[in-house]
Amino acid sequence: MATKKNPTKKKPAGFPKLDSAVCDWPGGVLHEVPGFRTVAIHCGLKRKKHKPDLALWVADAPAAAAGVFTTNRVCAAPVDLCRAHLKASGGRVKAVVVNAGNANACTGVQGEKDALAMANLAAKAVGCPASQVQVCSTGIIGRLMPMKKLERGIGKLGKLLARHGNYGDFARAIMTTDLVPKTAAVKVKIGQAEVRIAGATKGSGMIAPNMATTLGFVATDARISPKLLQKALSDANAETMNCLTVDGDTSTNDTLLVLASGKAAHAPVTSASSAAYRAFVAGLHRVLDRLAYLIAEDGEGASHTVTVYVGGTRNDADARQIAATISNSPLVKTAIAGNDPNWGRIVAAAGRSGVAFEPGETSLLLNGVEIFRDGMPTRYNADKLSASLKRSRETGIVLLVGHGPGRAKYYTCDLTHGYISINADYHT
Amino acid sequence: MATKKNPTKKKPAGFPKLDSAVCDWPGGVLHEVPGFRTVAIHCGLKRKKHKPDLALWVADAPAAAAGVFTTNRVCAAPVDLCRAHLKASGGRVKAVVVNAGNANACTGVQGEKDALAMANLAAKAVGCPASQVQVCSTGIIGRLMPMKKLERGIGKLGKLLARHGNYGDFARAIMTTDLVPKTAAVKVKIGQAEVRIAGATKGSGMIAPNMATTLGFVATDARISPKLLQKALSDANAETMNCLTVDGDTSTNDTLLVLASGKAAHAPVTSASSAAYRAFVAGLHRVLDRLAYLIAEDGEGASHTVTVYVGGTRNDADARQIAATISNSPLVKTAIAGNDPNWGRIVAAAGRSGVAFEPGETSLLLNGVEIFRDGMPTRYNADKLSASLKRSRETGIVLLVGHGPGRAKYYTCDLTHGYISINADYHT
Repeated sequence: MATKKNPTKKKPAGFPKLDSAVCDWPGGVLHEVPGFRTVAIHCGLKRKKHKPDLALWVADAPAAAAGVFTTNRVCAAPVDLCRAHLKASGGRVKAVVVNAGNANACTGVQGEKDALAMANLAAKAVGCPASQVQVCSTGIIGRLMPMKKLERGIGKLGKLLARHGNYGDFARAIMTTDLVPKTAAVKVKIGQAEVRIAGATKGSGMIAPNMATTLGFVATDARISPKLLQKALSDANAETMNCLTVDGDTSTNDTLLVLASGKAAHAPVTSASSAAYRAFVAGLHRVLDRLAYLIAEDGEGASHTVTVYVGGTRNDADARQIAATISNSPLVKTAIAGNDPNWGRIVAAAGRSGVAFEPGETSLLLNGVEIFRDGMPTRYNADKLSASLKRSRETGIVLLVGHGPGRAKYYTCDLTHGYISINADYHT
Repeated sequence: MATKKNPTKKKPAGFPKLDSAVCDWPGGVLHEVPGFRTVAIHCGLKRKKHKPDLALWVADAPAAAAGVFTTNRVCAAPVDLCRAHLKASGGRVKAVVVNAGNANACTGVQGEKDALAMANLAAKAVGCPASQVQVCSTGIIGRLMPMKKLERGIGKLGKLLARHGNYGDFARAIMTTDLVPKTAAVKVKIGQAEVRIAGATKGSGMIAPNMATTLGFVATDARISPKLLQKALSDANAETMNCLTVDGDTSTNDTLLVLASGKAAHAPVTSASSAAYRAFVAGLHRVLDRLAYLIAEDGEGASHTVTVYVGGTRNDADARQIAATISNSPLVKTAIAGNDPNWGRIVAAAGRSGVAFEPGETSLLLNGVEIFRDGMPTRYNADKLSASLKRSRETGIVLLVGHGPGRAKYYTCDLTHGYISINADYHT
């Protein structure tokens, strides 16, 4: 890979430090946030009886709510219902009912009726208007919901809620092909108050967010209006869940909801230019960033989790476009699977991203080693670098394409035989 | 997969008949077109001595020429040279020198010098100004060209040309990871004259054309000006080589050249609105369409060759965008590899393409069987359809998303363990 050219001693400009995405409240679950409870059971949607497949996430009192949803033109009935209910309730949500095993997508008019029936059942179970219920479904598409199972299940959830408050594992109940449950939680200071933000998500394949990805749920006890909460979610989502790809495919059911109970002891956050708002968004950003990373880490068949940093562009959008193209390139992803420091594939992917840049001003670091500078490969130890790729599940790509202020970070995973087995070999 | 819903008897609107892409002059090679010769040898760029890796394609007299090139920002030195020479020569080309084994990409100033040196060597070998020489390189990137081998090789090609006229196998000399050489040829009538159009191409991975793909060479004896030839090439290319993807990655070296010797006995084609022009473009279209199909068929690891037809959109560009998204979807490609009639993945890919359409007006046929109608799956025999997918290498997807006049056709292949092995397992 290396050419005869001697690289000069000068180092490329360092990449600006980004959020380290460490969670200071690991293992946090939604019901550890004041004002919320969760219950989860197995109702028969998944074949294995020890796997929960139906859950309720309930606010003690209607919470301020915000959501972002799939931009896929073919979107599932529950997504349409969520959008409509958020609008009708003025951004107030009492309960979210979630099932895994059936996505209720491409199910026509009956699918719409079934989503509404689920909302009505949950409304009855928790005692609120149906418009204060959000419905999320994930799983196989094109099959009608087995409504008898759901009717029995949601009724049972209501009873467990009344009797136990919290019951079962919410994060496991939303899993489909995921190998592990995915949660993240942080505490932030707003004024003198400690505010909690906890999230759970699912997703492994068909991951390429566009306004949201997969199913994601974030609980907080911050005091914030639905309108400002929506802004915070959209802002934080743009740089986290929307900078994540496993295979470039966007699902029909992607939904990300944030509920705020307002139980924390701080003055209400009322302005997007306040320190309180900035503190809240920073916390939300960290939770979503961590959840996005966890999805990439659990990508179908993944043997490497890849973080792609791009810097030096004219603006952040250009950097994101380059990072997305690299993250979706099958040739980059297979090279990483093969522990190959293949700068050519990475640079070529950047080149086809549609963003204008000067190849002669482009430098590339792989796992901290500069392998390409100013348009040409450096002299590096390919065997040593390959061994470092093999040793570590985390892979870091840093691409600097000029001297502009733009930058972006993207999460992805490699493309392995495991992905093909999961997605091709299941049928024959 | 199938729901309980009974499909109605009505058939969806048939897809408009497209060019069948049958070649009436199979086996045709460039030097069978009057006015051209080809010579090819092994000069040491490929390891195996029986594999040719260097070729010259020579016109008896400077031919009218047109080219389309990669849009990758990181483009190889020979691509820059080709563009400059086409301009400098006023669209006249006497010789094309092609090598496989080294792409001369990301090679800096030395790479530019080497590409120019290759042009000078070829100019000397055939006796013409260097500006009438085009240089095409394909193979590994980031390595300097072994110029001594090329100097000896091009000199030898010149002698063989003088002694034998034609020598060696041009189509094999341009191959890299290709399993088979790829040629196509047709005859068209212009006035009373029979005009020949013959093409050769290479490509198997890193295939996602953007103005051109891989390396492609088309010879014709039509009488046509460089300007009109460029228009014909750009028009035909847009619906053929630019509607082809293996893995979505665009190479740094993509080049497609057409040379017209003007030896055919018809009046010069002078207007884009003439019957003669239309006949020529139709022939060129058929050759490029066949070459594009051959690349998809030889896609790295492919077990199915997939033709994606999309119809019913507002315009052709929308249809192309949907077809491209389906063709690049790893989930669609793995489903086909697994012989799974997975309408959900195809419809979801269309939904994320960015083109607006009504899911409720969408129908889908797979290998001729309607499996999705008006937004819902039909009742079809999934086992029988899977068996038909397994039996046939050719896979046909027809997606109708409305009632507009737009339509497009895209070629791709499935995504298999073979692709991963070729692109990940070579290094470790």
